[in-house]
Amino acid sequence: MKLYEIREPKGVNSLVPVEKDVPKPGPGEVLIRVHAVSLNYRDLLIAQGRYGRALKLPLIPMSDGAGEIVETGPGVTRVKRGDRVAGIFMQGWLSGDVTPHAASTALGGAVDGMLAEYVVLRQDGVVVVPSHLSYEEAAALPCAAVTAWNALTTWTLKPGINVLVQGTGGVSIFALQFARLAGARVIVTSSSDQKLRKAAEMGAAGLINYQAVPSWDQKAIELTSGMGVDHIIEVGGPGTLGRSMNAVRVGGRISVIGLLTGPEGVVNPMPILGKQIQVQGIFVGSRDMFDAMNRAIALHQLRPVIDRVFSFGEASDALRYLESRAHFGKVVIAV
Amino acid sequence: MKLYEIREPKGVNSLVPVEKDVPKPGPGEVLIRVHAVSLNYRDLLIAQGRYGRALKLPLIPMSDGAGEIVETGPGVTRVKRGDRVAGIFMQGWLSGDVTPHAASTALGGAVDGMLAEYVVLRQDGVVVVPSHLSYEEAAALPCAAVTAWNALTTWTLKPGINVLVQGTGGVSIFALQFARLAGARVIVTSSSDQKLRKAAEMGAAGLINYQAVPSWDQKAIELTSGMGVDHIIEVGGPGTLGRSMNAVRVGGRISVIGLLTGPEGVVNPMPILGKQIQVQGIFVGSRDMFDAMNRAIALHQLRPVIDRVFSFGEASDALRYLESRAHFGKVVIAV
Amino acid sequence: MKLYEIREPKGVNSLVPVEKDVPKPGPGEVLIRVHAVSLNYRDLLIAQGRYGRALKLPLIPMSDGAGEIVETGPGVTRVKRGDRVAGIFMQGWLSGDVTPHAASTALGGAVDGMLAEYVVLRQDGVVVVPSHLSYEEAAALPCAAVTAWNALTTWTLKPGINVLVQGTGGVSIFALQFARLAGARVIVTSSSDQKLRKAAEMGAAGLINYQAVPSWDQKAIELTSGMGVDHIIEVGGPGTLGRSMNAVRVGGRISVIGLLTGPEGVVNPMPILGKQIQVQGIFVGSRDMFDAMNRAIALHQLRPVIDRVFSFGEASDALRYLESRAHFGKVVIAV
Amino acid sequence: MKLYEIREPKGVNSLVPVEKDVPKPGPGEVLIRVHAVSLNYRDLLIAQGRYGRALKLPLIPMSDGAGEIVETGPGVTRVKRGDRVAGIFMQGWLSGDVTPHAASTALGGAVDGMLAEYVVLRQDGVVVVPSHLSYEEAAALPCAAVTAWNALTTWTLKPGINVLVQGTGGVSIFALQFARLAGARVIVTSSSDQKLRKAAEMGAAGLINYQAVPSWDQKAIELTSGMGVDHIIEVGGPGTLGRSMNAVRVGGRISVIGLLTGPEGVVNPMPILGKQIQVQGIFVGSRDMFDAMNRAIALHQLRPVIDRVFSFGEASDALRYLESRAHFGKVVIAV
Repeated sequence: MKLYEIREPKGVNSLVPVEKDVPKPGPGEVLIRVHAVSLNYRDLLIAQGRYGRALKLPLIPMSDGAGEIVETGPGVTRVKRGDRVAGIFMQGWLSGDVTPHAASTALGGAVDGMLAEYVVLRQDGVVVVPSHLSYEEAAALPCAAVTAWNALTTWTLKPGINVLVQGTGGVSIFALQFARLAGARVIVTSSSDQKLRKAAEMGAAGLINYQAVPSWDQKAIELTSGMGVDHIIEVGGPGTLGRSMNAVRVGGRISVIGLLTGPEGVVNPMPILGKQIQVQGIFVGSRDMFDAMNRAIALHQLRPVIDRVFSFGEASDALRYLESRAHFGKVVIAV
Repeated sequence: MKLYEIREPKGVNSLVPVEKDVPKPGPGEVLIRVHAVSLNYRDLLIAQGRYGRALKLPLIPMSDGAGEIVETGPGVTRVKRGDRVAGIFMQGWLSGDVTPHAASTALGGAVDGMLAEYVVLRQDGVVVVPSHLSYEEAAALPCAAVTAWNALTTWTLKPGINVLVQGTGGVSIFALQFARLAGARVIVTSSSDQKLRKAAEMGAAGLINYQAVPSWDQKAIELTSGMGVDHIIEVGGPGTLGRSMNAVRVGGRISVIGLLTGPEGVVNPMPILGKQIQVQGIFVGSRDMFDAMNRAIALHQLRPVIDRVFSFGEASDALRYLESRAHFGKVVIAV
Repeated sequence: MKLYEIREPKGVNSLVPVEKDVPKPGPGEVLIRVHAVSLNYRDLLIAQGRYGRALKLPLIPMSDGAGEIVETGPGVTRVKRGDRVAGIFMQGWLSGDVTPHAASTALGGAVDGMLAEYVVLRQDGVVVVPSHLSYEEAAALPCAAVTAWNALTTWTLKPGINVLVQGTGGVSIFALQFARLAGARVIVTSSSDQKLRKAAEMGAAGLINYQAVPSWDQKAIELTSGMGVDHIIEVGGPGTLGRSMNAVRVGGRISVIGLLTGPEGVVNPMPILGKQIQVQGIFVGSRDMFDAMNRAIALHQLRPVIDRVFSFGEASDALRYLESRAHFGKVVIAV
Repeated sequence: MKLYEIREPKGVNSLVPVEKDVPKPGPGEVLIRVHAVSLNYRDLLIAQGRYGRALKLPLIPMSDGAGEIVETGPGVTRVKRGDRVAGIFMQGWLSGDVTPHAASTALGGAVDGMLAEYVVLRQDGVVVVPSHLSYEEAAALPCAAVTAWNALTTWTLKPGINVLVQGTGGVSIFALQFARLAGARVIVTSSSDQKLRKAAEMGAAGLINYQAVPSWDQKAIELTSGMGVDHIIEVGGPGTLGRSMNAVRVGGRISVIGLLTGPEGVVNPMPILGKQIQVQGIFVGSRDMFDAMNRAIALHQLRPVIDRVFSFGEASDALRYLESRAHFGKVVIAV
C-alpha cells in the first residue's frame, strides 16, 4: 500500500511517498481502507516543524480521515466490517473531561495519522459517520468540526446569542454551520469580500472585512447594538486575542482554538478581569462529542463545505494550497 | 376603566365585570394600557378554585398581558412612555435561581393580574417585547413561552437531540418552536390528527396520536431508534408521568411543567433510579430568561401561534374555549 | 480457589461455595487476589431474586471488592503487579455521562462479581485505592461511596448548604462524611437513637428519629429554619419520596439512590412542579468519579465506617446481618 | 456627621475629612450607622488615580462597610431598624449573571462608598451579616470575601482538589479559608516565610516562598505530584499570569481576580490552548453569592482574618499601611 511519511519536518515538501505492507488488525483493532483525508492548519505546522508538541518521527501525517472497515481483529464488537468510519482525533479521549494523556494519542502527531491507503486503529478510536456524507465530507469532521462543536456546545448555546467566527477556514465554517443550527446569530470576519459573500449565503448575519475595517472589534460591537459578542471562536491566537477581548460582551466567552497568527505574540490580559470574560482553550474534543455532533449533522443533513479535493499524489500541493489561505472550508485529499 | 374580577372562584363564570378609576403609577412604577391578554390553563384552574396556591381575592385574573406604557412614576429609568411591554409572570423573579418569595408575586394569582384596561406594575416587572409582534402575540409570551424556554434552555440543548412535547397547548407549541430553533428533533403527541398535521407543518418530525396509540411511550422509543427521548416536556402531570419515564432515555430529562391530567394521581418513581432520569419541576421563569427568549424571538422573527382572539366582553367565552381543549396554541383576549 | 455462586436466587441462603481453578488474565486484563468484599443492599435483592435487572446465572455475587494485582496480561499499562486496587462497579462506565451500555457491565449482577479468592478484570476496570486504607476499608468504596460522591458532587455542593441523609447504611454514612468534608450541614434520620448518636459523633448537626417523629419532613423543615433542605439523599424509594418532597426546599434536589422501602409504592409527583424540585436518579458512578473521590479520601485520610467484618465462610451470615438492618456503615467479608 | 472625600485622586493623601448633615433615607432606602470599613487594593488604586474605571468625583471612598440600620424609608420590607448589615459591592447586582450595568453601581467608585459615619443605601443593596461577627469582621466581607467565594464556587469545587492562592492579602486569605471549608488542598505563595507560617496554621498544605523560589510554578507542579494545580486564584495580573498558566493542570482553571503586579504587562496566551485552560475574570459577585457565603460563614463560625484596625482619624494611615503590603488578611478602619 501507499502512504506518506514525514521524516524531517522542513515545510510543505516534507511528505515522502512510501510503500509498505498492509497492516493487520490485532485484538480490538480494525483495518480501515482510507478513502479521504482532510487537512488542518495543524498539519501544516507539523510539516513545518513549528508545532509545539512532541512528534513521532517518522510520522504518517494528518489526523483526519474516513474510510471503510475492511477487517476486524479478535474481540471487536463496537463496529463491523463494512462500516463507514472516521478516526477520532485523540484516540484516547473517549468521554468526559480532557486528560493529559489524551494529547499523547493525537493522530498524525503523537502517533501515526491517516495519510495512507490503509490504517489500523483501535475499535474505540473510530466513529460511524452519517450515511448521507461522502468520504470526502466525512474526512472533514474529526478535527475541525469536533473543535467547533466542542467550543460551541460546552458553553451557553441558546437561540438568539451572537457568535463571531474569525475567518473562513475549516473550524470557522463548521462553527458558522453549527451556530446557525442552534439558532445563534453569526458574525464572520474575513479579508475577502468574496468569502464574506459565501458566508452570507450560508446564513451569516454580520460580515466584517478586517482588511477594510482593521478595528473589526469596534465593528462587531456595533453589529451587536453596542452589547458586544456573546461568544467568539478565536482562531488567530495572540495576534487577534486582544481585539477579541474588546469585541466580547461583559461576561462573554472566547474559545481559543487556533493560532493562525503564530504562537509568539503577547497580549494584555486585563480585559479578562475588567469584563469578567471567560477565555477557554479548546483542543478538538472527545468521541462522545463526535457522536453527538454526528446526530446533529445527520438530523439536519448538514454537509461540510469542501473547498477543493486533491488526489493522493498531490498531497504536497494540498498542503501548499492550505498554506496560501485561499480556501473557504476544508481542503481534502482523495485516497 | 373596565376590568374583570374573580370574587369567588366557581368556574368559568366567575369573571365579574367591574368599573374602576385608572390607577396612578407610584415611585418606580409604570401605568400600562393593556391591549391584549392571553389565557393559560392556570387561569382556568384559578377560576375553578382548583389552583393549589393562595389567591388574592377579589382578584383581577390572568397573568399574561401586553400593552403600552402610557405614564411613568417618579424614578423610572428602565423603560419609558411609549414602550411596548409585557408584564413578567412573577414580578419578583428577575434573575438567578427561583426563590420561595417569587411564587408570591405571580400575576393573576397571588397578586392582581392583567385582565383590565389599565394596570400599574413596577418598572422591574416588565420587559420590552420584540417589535415585530402584535400585542396579541406579545401577550402570549409571559407564562407559556417563558416556561417552554426555561425548560429547554436550562438543560442540555444541543442540535440533534430529541425533544418530546405533549399536546398542542400554549407551552407545548412554544416548546416545539424553540426546540426547532435550537436544532432539536421534535416529537409531538396529540389526540387529534388535525393538530398533528399542523405540528408537522411547524417542523415536528415525529407525530403520535395518543388516542390511536395509547402506548405512546413505546412509539416514542421506536421513533428514537430504540434509544428513548432525550428531553420530555411533561404537561400532563401524574396521569402521564409514568409513560414519560418509560419514553425518556437513560440519563434523560423530564421537565414537569403542567398538570393537565389533574393533580391527584400517583406514579411509581422507580424508573428515576433505574434509568438515572432527571425530573425537574419548571414554574415559568425569570425576567432574564424572558429577555434572552425575546432576543431569540426577535432574531428569528418567530411568531407565537394564536388560535383565536376573543373580545374583552367575551372573556368568559375565552375561558370556556380553553376548557374545551379545542385550541392549538394560544387563546387571546383583545382589550 | 474458593468462590461463591448464586445459581438460583432464593434468599440469603442462595450462596453456594464452589472450587475452581485460578483464572488467567488475557490481553489487557489483570488477575486480582481479592482480600475483602463489601455488601450492598443490592446484593441482598439479587440473592432474593428481587433485583429488577437481568442477572447472569450462575453468578459470582457482590460488586465490591479490593485486592492486590498478582498477575497482568499482555498489554497492561495502566496498573502493575503489586498495585492495591478495587474493581469499579460498572466495568464499562469510565468517564462522562452514563450510557445504557454501562448498566450491562455491573459486577455481581450483569457479570460475575468479587466474592472469590481471585478475579480477572480488565485493566480499565480497576482503580488504585488510597494507601492509608486497609483492604476491608477499600472494599467498602466501589458502590456505596461512589454513589454518595456522585449524588453530592454533580449538584451544587457549596459550604453551608443543608444535606439530609436517610438512615445509616453504607451510602448514607459515606454521604454524611463527604458532605461534611465539603462544608455542608448534615441532617441524619434513623429509627435508632444509638445510631443517631454515632452520626452526631461523625459531625451530623441535625438528628431525627423517624420512629419517634414520623413526620420527619416537618422536623427537617424546622431544622432548616423553615427553608427546607437543599439536597436530600433519598435511599428509601417510593415509601419515603413523598416526605422528601415535602422536606426539600423550593428549587432543591432529591438524589434518588435506593429503594429500601421496596420498589412497589407510588407517590404524587406534584410537589416537583409546585416547588420546582429536581429529582435525580443516581446509580453509582464512573471511574473518573471514583478517582476524584479517592483523591478526597486520601487528602483527608478519611476512613470508611466498617460495622462488622465476617470471614469468607460466613458470607451467608453477612447477608443475613445486612438483612437485619442492624448495621451502621458497611458490612464486609474478609477473603 | 464626619466622612472622607476624594476630590482629586493623587495618592494615599487624597482623603479629605468633611462634615455633612446625616442624610435621610428615601422610599425603599435605609440609613446605616457605619461602624467599620475595610480596605481593598482597589481603594488604593482609586486614591492613586490608577483605577481603570470611571469614578464619581468628589467621591466618598471605600466599598466595604458594615453597620446598623438606624432608620428606614417608606416601603422598606427586606430589612428593619436594628439589623446589622453590610453593603453589597455592586448595588445593582443582586442575582444571576453579571451585567454591564452592575459595574456602574460599585460603591466607593462609580457611586459614593462607606467611609462615613452614616450612609444611605437601597434596601436591596444590603445583606444581614452573620451574628457571630463583629462589625470589623463583617466589614471585611463585601469585596474580598465575595470575590473569593465567587471564584471558588462557580467552578468545580470538590473535596480533594488543589487550589493555589497567591499571596496573603484579603482575597487570598478568604480563598484559603473557603477552599479549606470545601475540603480542598490549598497551596499558598508569599514572599514572607512568616506569612507562610501563618497560612500553614490556617490549614495551607503547600507553602512556596516566591522570593526564595522564583519559579514557583515548577514548585507548584511538584507539590501536586506533577499533575498541576486544579484552580489558581490569580491576584497578580499580567506579571504572574504566565507562571499561573504553567502551574495549572491540563483542563484546569485560573480565576483572574486582581492585578497587584500592575495592569500594564503582557503575556503569551498559548498555554490556554495547549492545556485547554479556562481563564475566568472574577469581579466580586452578586448579593445571592454574598448570602450563600454568609450561610457558610455562619455555619462554620468562620472569622475573617483582620490584620490591623485603624481609627477613623487614621484613614490615610490605613491606606499607607495597605500600600506597604505588610498585611496578612484585612486592614480595617473603625468608624
